[in-house]
Amino acid sequence: MSRGLDGQHPDRLARAVLTWIADPGDAQLGAVLRHSSPAAVVTALTTGAPLGAGPAAALDRARLRWAARLGDAPTVATLEAWQRDGIRLVCPGDPEWPGQLEVLGAARPWGLWVRGQADLRFACLRSVSIVGTRAATGYGLHVTAELAAALAERGWTVVSGGAFGIDSQAHRGALAAEGVTVAVLPSGLDAPYPRGHHDLFEAAAAQGALVSEQPPGRAPTRPGFLVRNRLIAALSRGTVLAEAALRSGALNTARHARDQHRPLMAVPGPVTSMASAGCHLAIRDWGAVCVTGVHDVLACLSFSPGDLAAPSRGPVLPRDKLDPVTRSVLEALPARGGRGPARIAVSAGVDFDTVLRCLGQLAAGGFIERCERGWRVRRPADRKAG
Amino acid sequence: MSRGLDGQHPDRLARAVLTWIADPGDAQLGAVLRHSSPAAVVTALTTGAPLGAGPAAALDRARLRWAARLGDAPTVATLEAWQRDGIRLVCPGDPEWPGQLEVLGAARPWGLWVRGQADLRFACLRSVSIVGTRAATGYGLHVTAELAAALAERGWTVVSGGAFGIDSQAHRGALAAEGVTVAVLPSGLDAPYPRGHHDLFEAAAAQGALVSEQPPGRAPTRPGFLVRNRLIAALSRGTVLAEAALRSGALNTARHARDQHRPLMAVPGPVTSMASAGCHLAIRDWGAVCVTGVHDVLACLSFSPGDLAAPSRGPVLPRDKLDPVTRSVLEALPARGGRGPARIAVSAGVDFDTVLRCLGQLAAGGFIERCERGWRVRRPADRKAG
Repeated sequence: MSRGLDGQHPDRLARAVLTWIADPGDAQLGAVLRHSSPAAVVTALTTGAPLGAGPAAALDRARLRWAARLGDAPTVATLEAWQRDGIRLVCPGDPEWPGQLEVLGAARPWGLWVRGQADLRFACLRSVSIVGTRAATGYGLHVTAELAAALAERGWTVVSGGAFGIDSQAHRGALAAEGVTVAVLPSGLDAPYPRGHHDLFEAAAAQGALVSEQPPGRAPTRPGFLVRNRLIAALSRGTVLAEAALRSGALNTARHARDQHRPLMAVPGPVTSMASAGCHLAIRDWGAVCVTGVHDVLACLSFSPGDLAAPSRGPVLPRDKLDPVTRSVLEALPARGGRGPARIAVSAGVDFDTVLRCLGQLAAGGFIERCERGWRVRRPADRKAG
Repeated sequence: MSRGLDGQHPDRLARAVLTWIADPGDAQLGAVLRHSSPAAVVTALTTGAPLGAGPAAALDRARLRWAARLGDAPTVATLEAWQRDGIRLVCPGDPEWPGQLEVLGAARPWGLWVRGQADLRFACLRSVSIVGTRAATGYGLHVTAELAAALAERGWTVVSGGAFGIDSQAHRGALAAEGVTVAVLPSGLDAPYPRGHHDLFEAAAAQGALVSEQPPGRAPTRPGFLVRNRLIAALSRGTVLAEAALRSGALNTARHARDQHRPLMAVPGPVTSMASAGCHLAIRDWGAVCVTGVHDVLACLSFSPGDLAAPSRGPVLPRDKLDPVTRSVLEALPARGGRGPARIAVSAGVDFDTVLRCLGQLAAGGFIERCERGWRVRRPADRKAG
């Protein structure tokens, strides 16, 4: 898959630079971006011009921090090299940008580095995060694999953090069911962490996507894990805590889901197992819904307000912002009734894989929808800007 | 223990007759008792006099039902014989009557048949019901025994239904910790059901009490089990569902606790165990609190409104209704400061066991309270009629 940088918004390179110079979730940068464009911020940092409103002293310290990394920040050439390695940058306003990340407010990622076949926005429209302890028991691993596979079989994407134990088992369960999985990683995507999951990550990229706020070359940091967790919760429609002890990092993800008012679920376990104590805590004290299987999870999600496909806020995607190939796929759909991907591929004159990717983008943008006979155009009255 | 019938309220024999002729929870009789005394009802049934207000047709059918059993209803001699066998009748207004049963409204028992050393009212002031499936797993039995023993060690009475599986394990756990346990049985107390628990019931009577709404001689019936369950929930300050499948009768007890607005708790288990599916249902759909041990249970109960010792309604127990022995024990307490049971026994001139029983009654009535140095008189400002 090749997506060039040419003709893209000038903020794209600036956002790549921001992911390089500022840590994910940096509150100072979030505040600055409320009033300035990414390009203006990078220009100001380069030229020493003022950065706009904000507490002066804190902003000065932040400038020093950011400027220290400016020297080896990525250039257009760097981005093109990464893109040749399959690592693309997805920015707010892009067709692939998941609109549900708006829940993060000023802590929204500057941009997301993505590797993999899936369209990130489309993959996460119907997605569930499954997270848990690294020190998983046989019980936790069993339950996680069953749940992830059952969700994948029903067309749900499984989001997790790629870690040892429950996280990787969730990815494996989805992959085993030939489903889509998204791994949100704490490291740069050139060397996904943990290294021991190399084969798993390759499979996830082939059937889904790897995502990171960190640019290539960046190793994971301890605070980075915690900041990453907010993204796992924000990408998905709900979070399931599959197995977690009282001090598990997965409880941090669960708290993010709760704070984001997304459905939080937890799988109970034997009260004699300390590995489930965090799940029981979440059920008892945090209002997590007690879920025992896929039906409970889907029932819980059906009560969540609205579909992530139709958030009330977020970037609008006009038809003329579609790339030419995607637009040709859209135009290959009949005015009435549905059509399957194979016939669309013939009509549009593009290959089958490209059709599937474009259909995902178009569905995410609210242009088309699935029907019994394949895909059809949504009528304007049904469509909500996404 | 011997408690004569002499000098008791004339309704006492009538209530014994009512337990004989009407099933527990009989809605028609409950309605009639709103306007008529038990003695008036029995007299009317015997003489054919009218029974007061109510839908005439339903009442006529009920009369036939009740009258059919009038022939061999208990007499004063029967009650005295049962009393010699250790089976006493506890009626509303008696010092031993648990005031919290008022929550049942018109479905309040006509009277309770009790066998055992404990004062029922006192025993149930700080009590927790632990109920569950007959088809218990090793996990459920283990958790139940641990929880019951931990509650008993902290001075809580464990209430359950005496059945195979979780119920009997709850009684055993309390007894093993030398605590008090109350078994609410679906049969007459001359032949407690199930028979296989004979030794357990003897131990429960020695350290606590057996309770039934059914008079001696009555075998358990299928509807009787369900009606009995409302009493398990109503007697205790909260109900814990320890292990229950989806069709377990224990879920019926749990629903009663919920409907009575008493704290309902459930112990989670492996989601792979169908024996815990009812617990998970209660947590997910009925608002049962997820409890993993004694600390969770006590924390949950501490949020429950008020102490069962001080219900806002219910029979008032005036000092002159105390029996002479109990009154002498009350008078043996000093006007100021506390005194231990041994010294009270000497002052009152009664044996030690009797002193313990009377102290329980007096505490239940709000006359006295425990203090560091034993027992002391509660000042009128502290006392609430109970």
